[in-house]
Amino acid sequence: MTTTAKESRNGVDTATLFATLDAVKAAPEAAKFQFRATNEWITGTHSRSTIDAFFGVGEERSHERTFHFDADHPAILVGRDNGPTPVEFVLHALATCLTAGLANIAAARGVRLTEVRSTVVGDIDLNGILGLNPKVRNGYEGIEVRFTVKGDAPPEVLEALVEQSRARSAVFDIITNQVPVRIEVEAS
Amino acid sequence: MTTTAKESRNGVDTATLFATLDAVKAAPEAAKFQFRATNEWITGTHSRSTIDAFFGVGEERSHERTFHFDADHPAILVGRDNGPTPVEFVLHALATCLTAGLANIAAARGVRLTEVRSTVVGDIDLNGILGLNPKVRNGYEGIEVRFTVKGDAPPEVLEALVEQSRARSAVFDIITNQVPVRIEVEAS
Repeated sequence: MTTTAKESRNGVDTATLFATLDAVKAAPEAAKFQFRATNEWITGTHSRSTIDAFFGVGEERSHERTFHFDADHPAILVGRDNGPTPVEFVLHALATCLTAGLANIAAARGVRLTEVRSTVVGDIDLNGILGLNPKVRNGYEGIEVRFTVKGDAPPEVLEALVEQSRARSAVFDIITNQVPVRIEVEAS
Repeated sequence: MTTTAKESRNGVDTATLFATLDAVKAAPEAAKFQFRATNEWITGTHSRSTIDAFFGVGEERSHERTFHFDADHPAILVGRDNGPTPVEFVLHALATCLTAGLANIAAARGVRLTEVRSTVVGDIDLNGILGLNPKVRNGYEGIEVRFTVKGDAPPEVLEALVEQSRARSAVFDIITNQVPVRIEVEAS
């Protein structure tokens, strides 16, 4: 009974989580993943991405279904609002990465979560991307995340879960540190 | 007739685009935007974000409709694949940002695009987020973008459009430079 309770804590299969950790410890190459998105321009600032295949644990894999997402600019930014802006997807990526890590870490530490909510806000001065002020950067000047976390542990234990999730978050690292990006163009 | 053709080039309303640039030149404060996402944990690594309200051009605004996006981990990463991983949304954000900029810049320069496709791949070693190797970072080690661009201009002109889009991309800046992120927690 104890095992069952442990396995289902926070919806995280902790037995498999720990088994995965052991498997990667034994074969570190298994942890090399490549994720991909393909994108097709539709019109104006509107484009659509497809997310399906990825590589991991030594072989080509794919999601259980193919995902499609549109992005656009709102009318105030000379678009047609067919989807969120690209920079809003960055906020979504950050919130979901921190939250997934939080649930996993809580399960591993034996904490049962009852509620996790977050709001992520990013301030951006479009004088940057509009090329009107060379002192203004193109991207967010700053991002703020506000978490509400409830669970069966004291506040300081819950706060420590968020801190550990931050310390192990892929998207937090991508945003707060530098990732080299190479762009190749085949034009005709 | 020339005006109509120009206005509809690449689906970009260039008259409004240039008018927006002039308006921001006259009132730089109008370019201060704040974007937001709210997120709710569902179970395990699965959470759902809502994107709706934003601030810009001096007032609160909202998208024409409210957008919802799920993220999760695939089964191989101890999730249930209810959505792409957070790091895949980062690739989507980069592709859509570069593509929107490309269409705007092409329209402004009088180039008619006929096709824009891109593939974005990110390599990540999960020994980082699994905490198994302190020398491995949490996020992508590198990202590569491959564009196919077709239009009514010579290849070097089309390539220059991508280069200018890169130079003015918010998401490219966020990923390749550092954005400060502050996290607050209300735990109970």
